[in-house]
Amino acid sequence: MLDEAVGLGAVTVLGVLEQAYFSLQVIYARRKYKVSPPCISGPPEFERIFRAQANCSEYFPIFITILWTSGVFFSQGLSSLCGLLYLYGRLCYFWGYAESAQGRLAPLYFSARVLWVLIGFSAVGVFLSFCRVYMELDLLQALGHALF
Amino acid sequence: MLDEAVGLGAVTVLGVLEQAYFSLQVIYARRKYKVSPPCISGPPEFERIFRAQANCSEYFPIFITILWTSGVFFSQGLSSLCGLLYLYGRLCYFWGYAESAQGRLAPLYFSARVLWVLIGFSAVGVFLSFCRVYMELDLLQALGHALF
Amino acid sequence: MLDEAVGLGAVTVLGVLEQAYFSLQVIYARRKYKVSPPCISGPPEFERIFRAQANCSEYFPIFITILWTSGVFFSQGLSSLCGLLYLYGRLCYFWGYAESAQGRLAPLYFSARVLWVLIGFSAVGVFLSFCRVYMELDLLQALGHALF
Repeated sequence: MLDEAVGLGAVTVLGVLEQAYFSLQVIYARRKYKVSPPCISGPPEFERIFRAQANCSEYFPIFITILWTSGVFFSQGLSSLCGLLYLYGRLCYFWGYAESAQGRLAPLYFSARVLWVLIGFSAVGVFLSFCRVYMELDLLQALGHALF
Repeated sequence: MLDEAVGLGAVTVLGVLEQAYFSLQVIYARRKYKVSPPCISGPPEFERIFRAQANCSEYFPIFITILWTSGVFFSQGLSSLCGLLYLYGRLCYFWGYAESAQGRLAPLYFSARVLWVLIGFSAVGVFLSFCRVYMELDLLQALGHALF
Repeated sequence: MLDEAVGLGAVTVLGVLEQAYFSLQVIYARRKYKVSPPCISGPPEFERIFRAQANCSEYFPIFITILWTSGVFFSQGLSSLCGLLYLYGRLCYFWGYAESAQGRLAPLYFSARVLWVLIGFSAVGVFLSFCRVYMELDLLQALGHALF
């Protein structure tokens, strides 16, 4: 179990480090634009960085959840790869949003698409496991037999 | 391990899909009420949808965490069932909150109660495992012997 | 697997209970300062409690993720201990922030430092597992041989 999850573990640690980086950026922005907690409104430059971090934080648990569901029930390799792409997309999103509200869109769509791929992997993996466990039906094997 | 978690995996995928649905509703509301990011305040209709999604997102990691803790340490079947009830309650909450601030209350209390049941299951499951592993005491068996 | 995760399960249940406590405090503050949902701005006393809970909620999934990664790949005992310290730090943070914006700083730094320790444990654990699984190299054993 553990040995099959090293890739997922590595992506998870990278993901947490990315979130830490985003949080630090908000702290720097609070200092730069003089917006003291608990206040969360200020100049647009600050609000964009604040919202970028809030959006990434909001998606982080969904990402981790679906990364592991997909990795455990479908394929560790493919899921870890998608995980890396997602984290890269989120980095571009954060930098783009910090520049302008427009700049967040392309990487946002990209990371959303990667998330949908992971959701698809998870759904297929859980469905195949379900058939195998509760209906004693190995769909992949049955498909293989039907085709060849 | 994996075979005993198919139900939890299925509820997890459903939960992620529900969160995706809520996120899409916020995007549609931003367009409809012309509230462009990073702004998060606008007409009450928009703010209710925004807050409904924010609240569901906030509870999502707690839900997933306690769903799996309860499923792994207590019972997969009961936990998956509670998970489905929780997701149904959250859907009603979202629709109710989008209608009026009052409309969010009944389903909010319902889903909070389901969450408490899952917390109770987890606490009992972890406690029983603790006794078994560290005190070599199987409480359920001991209870069975005492009663019959 | 399960038996080696009882400590992590116990810390997880405690963490969820702490989040439930924070959520209840926000509900009480909303009543006390008469700030009805979906509104999230009000007197500073309310905003501090609201932001304290929002910040703890934001970090909760990161904490749970890194607690389990560290516990599974590195050491359950050390991770559970750090988990307890983190939860204690967050409690002090919440009470401190409710008093004054200044009062949140010391416990915030403390809990951030504990989080970094857990991130370090996870990184080391994942790296050692990676060497063992993909390079067939047991670094701890090799280090032991080199030293003694």
